[in-house]
Amino acid sequence: MTYIDGGVCAPKGFRAGGVWCGIKASRQKRDLALIAADECTGSAALFTKNAVKAASVLYSLPFAQGAPLRPMRAIIANSGNANACTGEAGRAAAARMARCAAERLGLAAERVAVASTGVIGVPLPIEAVERGVGPLAASLSADAAGNDAALEAIMTTDTRKKTCAVEFLCDGVPVRIGAMIKGSGMIHPNLGTMLCFITTDLNIDSPALDAALREAARASFDHFTIDGDTSTNDTVFAIASGRAGNPCLHTGDAALRQFTAALIEVCVTLVKQAARDGEGATKLVTVRVKGAASGADALLLGRAVASSSLVKTACFGADANWGRVLCALGYAGAAGFAPDAVSVAFASAAGEVLVCRNGAPVPFDEAAAKKILSLDEIAINITAGAGSGEAAVWGCDLSYDYVRINGDYRS
Amino acid sequence: MTYIDGGVCAPKGFRAGGVWCGIKASRQKRDLALIAADECTGSAALFTKNAVKAASVLYSLPFAQGAPLRPMRAIIANSGNANACTGEAGRAAAARMARCAAERLGLAAERVAVASTGVIGVPLPIEAVERGVGPLAASLSADAAGNDAALEAIMTTDTRKKTCAVEFLCDGVPVRIGAMIKGSGMIHPNLGTMLCFITTDLNIDSPALDAALREAARASFDHFTIDGDTSTNDTVFAIASGRAGNPCLHTGDAALRQFTAALIEVCVTLVKQAARDGEGATKLVTVRVKGAASGADALLLGRAVASSSLVKTACFGADANWGRVLCALGYAGAAGFAPDAVSVAFASAAGEVLVCRNGAPVPFDEAAAKKILSLDEIAINITAGAGSGEAAVWGCDLSYDYVRINGDYRS
Repeated sequence: MTYIDGGVCAPKGFRAGGVWCGIKASRQKRDLALIAADECTGSAALFTKNAVKAASVLYSLPFAQGAPLRPMRAIIANSGNANACTGEAGRAAAARMARCAAERLGLAAERVAVASTGVIGVPLPIEAVERGVGPLAASLSADAAGNDAALEAIMTTDTRKKTCAVEFLCDGVPVRIGAMIKGSGMIHPNLGTMLCFITTDLNIDSPALDAALREAARASFDHFTIDGDTSTNDTVFAIASGRAGNPCLHTGDAALRQFTAALIEVCVTLVKQAARDGEGATKLVTVRVKGAASGADALLLGRAVASSSLVKTACFGADANWGRVLCALGYAGAAGFAPDAVSVAFASAAGEVLVCRNGAPVPFDEAAAKKILSLDEIAINITAGAGSGEAAVWGCDLSYDYVRINGDYRS
Repeated sequence: MTYIDGGVCAPKGFRAGGVWCGIKASRQKRDLALIAADECTGSAALFTKNAVKAASVLYSLPFAQGAPLRPMRAIIANSGNANACTGEAGRAAAARMARCAAERLGLAAERVAVASTGVIGVPLPIEAVERGVGPLAASLSADAAGNDAALEAIMTTDTRKKTCAVEFLCDGVPVRIGAMIKGSGMIHPNLGTMLCFITTDLNIDSPALDAALREAARASFDHFTIDGDTSTNDTVFAIASGRAGNPCLHTGDAALRQFTAALIEVCVTLVKQAARDGEGATKLVTVRVKGAASGADALLLGRAVASSSLVKTACFGADANWGRVLCALGYAGAAGFAPDAVSVAFASAAGEVLVCRNGAPVPFDEAAAKKILSLDEIAINITAGAGSGEAAVWGCDLSYDYVRINGDYRS
């Protein structure tokens, strides 16, 4: 498998674009994105589990049935406004968003999915979207510039473009997957506030794509935390154009494994990019748990550590305060957790230092630990001593800038 | 019921004191506390539910049996070191702490409870404790100065002394309750990192005191969150001296209701003091939920809002970002929650402003909302529209100082 350029436009059969339509105040920022597939053999969607669901999510729910009657041909998405907690008017606005994009693309409205991100509880200026959709459709291009414009148009507090694409052989046929992700705050297991759009030129039907996407999400998005808040708008869309030319993949086909493995790698790459770009984050923190009583226990333990405000501030301060790691492990709710069997080490490219063995302190070089924790990619390696369950969880530190960014987000 | 001075020394039959013994680096700070009862008719104890329990907690667990064979006569507590994740040596140190205090007081070691707070994973310098216990016992006094010295000796990042005492009539007899609380970070429902010591001169046996304390904890400590971390050391001890002279209260006695009501008020007062003194907190945030499907739902909803980093930073920034409140309500896990029935208002002494009705925005005066949220005691009032369940949860905002304090706690 090789990484290539082009993001969602890398696979054959996709165009993308992004413009400013007037949702965000600044004309310098794009706020309306469109991704269109020339054809679609299958599509899939995952949404937030928050009981408060944005109008865009409610509108797009039918794409998540595993086998939508009409697979998705396009995605229209906006930033600057979440269209959440906006009542009946918000639901009408989501439908109008889909309809105006469908008209420009010559599609039935039921083929267009909608996503939104931004401030909650403010009416979406739908007229701006409708005015912008003409220039948006005209801007579509099948290259990296199209991908980047669309990606810019879904960014809020994101500071980096998070996108990737890969090429690999699926049953001997060259296949591409492209993806973009948006999200840096309000992110927590079970999809953080995040929009993720995935394209592939694989010929695959919706049930098979749905199965692959669910497995990839469990191995990536569910292992990802920024601040413990699960948003109203989390959305993952995947569209297959079929242009790779392989015989159509169905559930149960052996080649589905190859595609799923590639999809997992793409999603993990995006998650690591996004964790590193967490609001105010100065470093990517990977929590690796080995030896837990089960895989589920390992995930619980890893999430608790990666989510702990005290662990996160210690990472920010490059402080080898492993007691906070043990504390978080202790309240994780992992049934098979044995405090006296746990070991903890801090690691980075600067080395690894063991700080706790069998639940008790190990003498260690504070200066070496500080050096390790000062890098911008660090790991907390936990050995639970209770079995063979493993998990990695990706998160970030908690800095002054998180407070600054979120203290007055709406301004 | 009237509030009086004196803290844990306000009830008859108690002495308290605090000294510096050398656990904390600075001689200006006390780090060893002692509270002693002249007699004890009953005692009770509650501890952290964290699977990682400090040595002091493990040592003191027998006092939490509901009916300890030998009720507690004294509490020795230290700050500057949690004696947690310290292995066998830590457990031995906790036992030595109890023993040296018992010797000075002429008690059996089984009558002395132990509590610790501070950094995790560093061996407790037990020799310092043993050297300090002589001066400590000599310093005991039955007045407010004794209470304050003991309280200072259990403080870590606390910036205020959190203590209170009340007098009330229990079945016609004047009775006093005194209490102190320590804790400003690593605090979350089910006892945050907090030490709370309660005294009363009521004549009450251990099972009745245990029942009253559990009920009071459910109504106070379980409604309290600072940062979502549940510590290794959380401890609540209560001792009754019996000196009020009433006939001994047992479980089922009608007068127990009067005592429990007073105990709840004392604990809520402490919790509000402690929330306001959360690490880096600039304001007390009270989340009031009405109209939930049940009391349990109301508590889940209130906790989710009070615990949300995004809500907390918005409170810090005096930003009426009610969408984050709805978002937190949505992921709270309250089964009977109906997003379209919820209303939200922000309130303080400066007034109240409704910002959301039936899950949708209400036009409101931003300047007025900012003014309301700028005060140091604010409330988020939520009406769930699903039933008659109610709860109040106390928390605080999330500021730059939380990050500063916790970025390098050990230094």
